[in-house]
Amino acid sequence: MSRYWNSLISKLEPYVPGEQPRVQNLIKLNTNEHPYGPSPKVLEAISAQTNDSLRLYPDPTALELREAIAGRFGLTAEQVFVGNGSDEVLGHAFHALLKQDHPVFFPDITYSFYPVYCGLYEIAYKAIPLDEDFKIRVEDYLPGGQTRSGGIIFPNPNAPTGIAQPLDQIERVIAANPDIVVVVDEAYVDFGAQTAAGLIARYPNLLVVHTMSKAYSLAGLRVGFALGHPELIQGLDRVKNSFNSYPLDRLALAGAQAAVRDQEYFEKARDAVVRSREALTRDLCALGFEVLPSAANFIFVRHPAHTGEALASALRERNILVRHFKLGRISNHLRITIGTDDQCNKLVAACREILK
Amino acid sequence: MSRYWNSLISKLEPYVPGEQPRVQNLIKLNTNEHPYGPSPKVLEAISAQTNDSLRLYPDPTALELREAIAGRFGLTAEQVFVGNGSDEVLGHAFHALLKQDHPVFFPDITYSFYPVYCGLYEIAYKAIPLDEDFKIRVEDYLPGGQTRSGGIIFPNPNAPTGIAQPLDQIERVIAANPDIVVVVDEAYVDFGAQTAAGLIARYPNLLVVHTMSKAYSLAGLRVGFALGHPELIQGLDRVKNSFNSYPLDRLALAGAQAAVRDQEYFEKARDAVVRSREALTRDLCALGFEVLPSAANFIFVRHPAHTGEALASALRERNILVRHFKLGRISNHLRITIGTDDQCNKLVAACREILK
Repeated sequence: MSRYWNSLISKLEPYVPGEQPRVQNLIKLNTNEHPYGPSPKVLEAISAQTNDSLRLYPDPTALELREAIAGRFGLTAEQVFVGNGSDEVLGHAFHALLKQDHPVFFPDITYSFYPVYCGLYEIAYKAIPLDEDFKIRVEDYLPGGQTRSGGIIFPNPNAPTGIAQPLDQIERVIAANPDIVVVVDEAYVDFGAQTAAGLIARYPNLLVVHTMSKAYSLAGLRVGFALGHPELIQGLDRVKNSFNSYPLDRLALAGAQAAVRDQEYFEKARDAVVRSREALTRDLCALGFEVLPSAANFIFVRHPAHTGEALASALRERNILVRHFKLGRISNHLRITIGTDDQCNKLVAACREILK
Repeated sequence: MSRYWNSLISKLEPYVPGEQPRVQNLIKLNTNEHPYGPSPKVLEAISAQTNDSLRLYPDPTALELREAIAGRFGLTAEQVFVGNGSDEVLGHAFHALLKQDHPVFFPDITYSFYPVYCGLYEIAYKAIPLDEDFKIRVEDYLPGGQTRSGGIIFPNPNAPTGIAQPLDQIERVIAANPDIVVVVDEAYVDFGAQTAAGLIARYPNLLVVHTMSKAYSLAGLRVGFALGHPELIQGLDRVKNSFNSYPLDRLALAGAQAAVRDQEYFEKARDAVVRSREALTRDLCALGFEVLPSAANFIFVRHPAHTGEALASALRERNILVRHFKLGRISNHLRITIGTDDQCNKLVAACREILK
């Protein structure tokens, strides 16, 4: 507390990101980074911009990057917003679109940044419980319940469960709520779920948010984007241009464009992660772990005979970092990022040893 | 307007940055970029990080960069906050520190983003007129007036006038307002004014904001920082960590650190700009321009016989971009960024031709 903070800031409960350890030689399976580096074309594009042009401001409209993204999804640049990681994009979406007279709805077990944004922008929210299988119940997001909704947001696949919702179920939510914005946070969609981007032409209330931190191997470059009707994009632009005209630097713009354009590399690296996920799932099931069906680059697991805390700590002793959330129903689960096959094998070996 | 925007977003009047032209061969003196590129060590540091490590998140605390900055100012890392350009830093300062029960005070002619932040965060403000010489009157910022202040912000040197305030006058404002935060926006301070950073040890209500876009030649890399008492820095951290954990990418962190550490290059490039400013001032005065005394990397000028609009447009026809603000008292002024000597000479030649 400080007498110089206003009451809003004093009340905030900021988000705590997964640990970025300073020590080397850790197997880092805690923040859902891609195990393989970005496309060589990304590195070339960045190198080509590492020169005196850094003295100049970047394009505040990020037009070329928005065109590249639009091209990939069969959209126009007016349907694309870009930001400094999808966290910034989500922040602006809460501020511009989800802050309404009625509370925003999202799952109780989901990306834990959502309630933090609500704190920052003073937005009421209703956290809707997942069902007993940790799935989103689509019916809970259709109008007609006790509380009217001012907006809806959920990830697909959900985090940290990894469970995907079929596209027709997502469309039910969007179609049933034409007067409010539905944000589908597709941070992990490329690893096994269906994107809702194809629905944008039909639903002006749909905003689809993507990150380049996961499937594009660019967590270190800070690029995220949103896809939607031009009116929604303009709403985000109004907030962005009232906050920071140039959130993407020249190197991030160049690298992200090259990444979007190299779909061949993207798919190859993504497919390798999916194969490793399936192998790791089999191996952990064989050790008695319960593994939720994942469409992401992580798995969400528990072992019936061990607490999440004990497992996380035993893995840490063996130099393996995983993510453990000390939260009610999921306090015995671990979220494990899919690493290289070698890293996955070391994780399995460590678990085998711990469970002995 | 859109039915999906909330009322706040519909009311916003976003900031309009200076034009970033897509055509080549323009002499670009409109956005106060440095005419010379960054230190070669910056480019080396970025190249050394352009590799597979981009798959990993950056350090969310930016500790190494904060230590480098702290070292330069004789402060500790706990007294340093970094953000995605000083615009983001200023945004967080308005949200966390300047949003109070009483209006924030700033000059009527100043960085035009300040009222935009007030719109975004719903902060009342009082714009205090500069005196007839376009100077800030320090007395207007001392308590005792009709309106009580909830916070104070002004640039030193002021923008777009370029006029600096002596440090003892700034200290008067800080010392007289111990219960509210005083933000000194020192975006241009390195070109000829005295920094207030040395006052931080004595005044817990002082926040000093810097950018690396101007004197460090890194507008394209998006790095700004704030210096102040750890309580003020923690307030900014609380907002930042409720919005975006990683606003600085790995390449920006590396480049900014290298820039801060290469003070020799910094001073040499800065001194060249100051010399060019003095020469350009003499040349334009010789053509009958009135030039305000500048401590920045730009000059603010008017010609008694020509409107600002006509001059800006005549220069544009000659492929020279300058900044013209269509605002009351300064609508006949032009803000001209100091370019290379060659660019300055071409500007003078163009003015001579226009005035003929």
